[in-house]
Amino acid sequence: MGKFCKDPKVVTADDFFFSGLQVSGNTANRLGSNVTLVNVDKLPGLNTLGISLARVDFAPYGLNPPHTHPRGSEIIMVAEGTLYVGFVTSNTDNRFFTKVLIRETSLCSQLVSFTSSLMWERPMQSPLQVFSSQNPGVITIANAVFGSNPPINSDVLTKAFQVDKNVVNYLQKQF
Amino acid sequence: MGKFCKDPKVVTADDFFFSGLQVSGNTANRLGSNVTLVNVDKLPGLNTLGISLARVDFAPYGLNPPHTHPRGSEIIMVAEGTLYVGFVTSNTDNRFFTKVLIRETSLCSQLVSFTSSLMWERPMQSPLQVFSSQNPGVITIANAVFGSNPPINSDVLTKAFQVDKNVVNYLQKQF
Amino acid sequence: MGKFCKDPKVVTADDFFFSGLQVSGNTANRLGSNVTLVNVDKLPGLNTLGISLARVDFAPYGLNPPHTHPRGSEIIMVAEGTLYVGFVTSNTDNRFFTKVLIRETSLCSQLVSFTSSLMWERPMQSPLQVFSSQNPGVITIANAVFGSNPPINSDVLTKAFQVDKNVVNYLQKQF
Amino acid sequence: MGKFCKDPKVVTADDFFFSGLQVSGNTANRLGSNVTLVNVDKLPGLNTLGISLARVDFAPYGLNPPHTHPRGSEIIMVAEGTLYVGFVTSNTDNRFFTKVLIRETSLCSQLVSFTSSLMWERPMQSPLQVFSSQNPGVITIANAVFGSNPPINSDVLTKAFQVDKNVVNYLQKQF
Amino acid sequence: MGKFCKDPKVVTADDFFFSGLQVSGNTANRLGSNVTLVNVDKLPGLNTLGISLARVDFAPYGLNPPHTHPRGSEIIMVAEGTLYVGFVTSNTDNRFFTKVLIRETSLCSQLVSFTSSLMWERPMQSPLQVFSSQNPGVITIANAVFGSNPPINSDVLTKAFQVDKNVVNYLQKQF
Amino acid sequence: MGKFCKDPKVVTADDFFFSGLQVSGNTANRLGSNVTLVNVDKLPGLNTLGISLARVDFAPYGLNPPHTHPRGSEIIMVAEGTLYVGFVTSNTDNRFFTKVLIRETSLCSQLVSFTSSLMWERPMQSPLQVFSSQNPGVITIANAVFGSNPPINSDVLTKAFQVDKNVVNYLQKQF
Repeated sequence: MGKFCKDPKVVTADDFFFSGLQVSGNTANRLGSNVTLVNVDKLPGLNTLGISLARVDFAPYGLNPPHTHPRGSEIIMVAEGTLYVGFVTSNTDNRFFTKVLIRETSLCSQLVSFTSSLMWERPMQSPLQVFSSQNPGVITIANAVFGSNPPINSDVLTKAFQVDKNVVNYLQKQF
Repeated sequence: MGKFCKDPKVVTADDFFFSGLQVSGNTANRLGSNVTLVNVDKLPGLNTLGISLARVDFAPYGLNPPHTHPRGSEIIMVAEGTLYVGFVTSNTDNRFFTKVLIRETSLCSQLVSFTSSLMWERPMQSPLQVFSSQNPGVITIANAVFGSNPPINSDVLTKAFQVDKNVVNYLQKQF
Repeated sequence: MGKFCKDPKVVTADDFFFSGLQVSGNTANRLGSNVTLVNVDKLPGLNTLGISLARVDFAPYGLNPPHTHPRGSEIIMVAEGTLYVGFVTSNTDNRFFTKVLIRETSLCSQLVSFTSSLMWERPMQSPLQVFSSQNPGVITIANAVFGSNPPINSDVLTKAFQVDKNVVNYLQKQF
Repeated sequence: MGKFCKDPKVVTADDFFFSGLQVSGNTANRLGSNVTLVNVDKLPGLNTLGISLARVDFAPYGLNPPHTHPRGSEIIMVAEGTLYVGFVTSNTDNRFFTKVLIRETSLCSQLVSFTSSLMWERPMQSPLQVFSSQNPGVITIANAVFGSNPPINSDVLTKAFQVDKNVVNYLQKQF
Repeated sequence: MGKFCKDPKVVTADDFFFSGLQVSGNTANRLGSNVTLVNVDKLPGLNTLGISLARVDFAPYGLNPPHTHPRGSEIIMVAEGTLYVGFVTSNTDNRFFTKVLIRETSLCSQLVSFTSSLMWERPMQSPLQVFSSQNPGVITIANAVFGSNPPINSDVLTKAFQVDKNVVNYLQKQF
Repeated sequence: MGKFCKDPKVVTADDFFFSGLQVSGNTANRLGSNVTLVNVDKLPGLNTLGISLARVDFAPYGLNPPHTHPRGSEIIMVAEGTLYVGFVTSNTDNRFFTKVLIRETSLCSQLVSFTSSLMWERPMQSPLQVFSSQNPGVITIANAVFGSNPPINSDVLTKAFQVDKNVVNYLQKQF
């Protein structure tokens, strides 16, 4: 899981620097959102530091869909606009927590997720996510469940979601 | 997350013993499956050991639906019958791996999941799951997404699953 | 201690699958027992998961002799027959805990060891051991003490075990 | 070092929410800077998540003086203005790395520190710091060396800094 | 396993100080050795530091008998005299490594053990042991195997050590 | 940060042995002290053990100047003479703790530091330091602050230490 440490003698300040976060992500897609992740693959100086971050851009009514991070916790901050965020706790409660985050001045309100909870956001504009991992990973529920390659057997999904098989077939066709 | 350690002077052999795994779980439910979890709450001697396990019973055509374990890895073994297991890797590949596990003699074939991958099983009879955590947690996708309390806004789910809002309303009604 | 992670693009379902556990180990040896260990060397998908397992077969009156696992905790389950298990706590109490585990139906009773305690088992038939490590290691006391290569100086053992040197010489000859 | 986890049944969304980051810190002090730290003491939901953050405000020519974080790594982002940041590596190289970070649009350039390196910043306006710890701690060098209570013996500092004792006395008087 | 941290406001220098190591341990016992352990129970400031140490005194021909530390690694240094040290690696090699350590001037030669290996020492005079744990624990093999309370069934030991039951009975009587 | 483990088949006892600690370090330098560090680079057997040590020699009135260890805790023992030790806690208290350690017989008094606290020692003769890391690192404050390469901007230091710029220039010239 780790990466080799660069020889300290050939390290430069640029190994600890990343400038791509000022670029807006392209939100002209079906979800109206775009994640620019800065993990250890893009910023070598993060190696062994246990931390990384991401910029998320949103079109109006865009969505960063329900997902979990299998290897990290997350903090969310709004940099512009208003952010509607939520997460659901694990079994057997499945409690649903939400909050509206408003950028007030130059910095922001925030909401902190449970470790690897199911979470999603529907903000107006760019929030910032910070992770307790140099490579947090992400499982987007809808894509993993209905858009895997090859597809999951529709009988499995029919039973899991308690629906008619036509509904599952219809859902699988969207991905 | 941890528990207090019991005073070593008052510990007995029963603190390290659990006998409930021989009891079949009741599978007369909508999923046709039942999980009997033995974590640190049920077996005090597991405290700090980083390990726990579960028995899963299945009715014919039962299903342990797609889920993730936010705090642990998992190994699955078949104790009786045949087990169809699968898991999907994280973004952006969403690769789908499956295997049919057959109980051959007294012990079994097995399949090991990725850390916190989305996974599910459709076995004929009781498999055994082992976890790398004294309290692994579980997020059942369908319940967390469509059955949370209170429900997630249907606009969010409509966009995430790329479907008509009636489909989302229909899905939410199943839970 | 770790292994390199395989390139995710060339991973297949077989990297997470192991089928050898259905084969009985050969117990026609002086201890009347046989351990089939499934660690990360045999099942590559266990890498970084912090978990592994073993099947132990026994002849009648066989024994898995006193040992410790230097890098992992252990849970034991009986798959067939009856298992007499015990462990001794560390200094200065040296308390001795035992339990008889009986396979009742398809699954089993269990006993959980302290981290790296001295432990042993005398079961009738195949128990299953699960470890909180992908490579738990094992130190079999009798072999390490009396059967090392080269042998430990008999003066050291004479004093440690508080016996006549002839007894130590006799013990060393058994290995 | 840890905190007790709150009973999950009485947790509310506010346990995961903090709104004070939009308030500018008062920079009318001798350093012209102000740190607003949001650690687990202020945001209970951070408990066990291994992450926290801070807002730093600066007066023109203000300074967040040389310091180390004994229990965490750090990422810095500029939210407004321009930030001059630097850090020195450990013995025996003592290499000095610097970078000027410019806020370009809504988000920012960034620089990542070594684990617990000596570091400092001289920005124009509010940068944001993120830590790989729920309670990273901070040792401000000048205060710890010359402003401790009681003061360090001036002979020790005279030798450490290789200066006349009057210089040390003069430095100690500033704190 | 952890201890509560003392309130930082009431901590004093004495919480970080221990002066008992200058006292020789009483070696007038059957092993001719004495261990003075300084762990977190005796030196509160060690809490969370992951380190502890011990002084071992020896009578001529004394012995610190074969043992393992279930929760820590160890370094050994000779402070006076000459030390004969050894350790055996885990299965299946059971390789035996030894070294004679000689105190040369004010400090010493040293030997480092494997994590939780079986190890022992036969020094002339006081060596110093350092552990990578605030509470390393110790399992003295002979005592745990032949001197537990209640005793281990002699059939188990007869088979493990491959000897006549009279030899086991004789060994158990020594403890 | 880790090192590769050597093939167990080619390991010898010398991989776990280091004999250089009996050699006095040369203290004929401006600080009158000399650190002989035995970390994983010098003693391969320390790999993954989480422990290392150092001998520190002192000329009369020598000093091991204020420093922090970014990756490890420390215990100090006096092997000869008398040792004056101190450390300062982190913000905002900056409490200063000191103790005089006297070698009484063959072993010693000791003092334990906080994790990564600012600490220093002014002993008469060789103390021994033990670390909870195979490679603890060290940041010597005076060298990092006033002797880095290239030098830190004197405006930064003038403000941090609240002094006239001539004093900073004078301090930087000493290194």
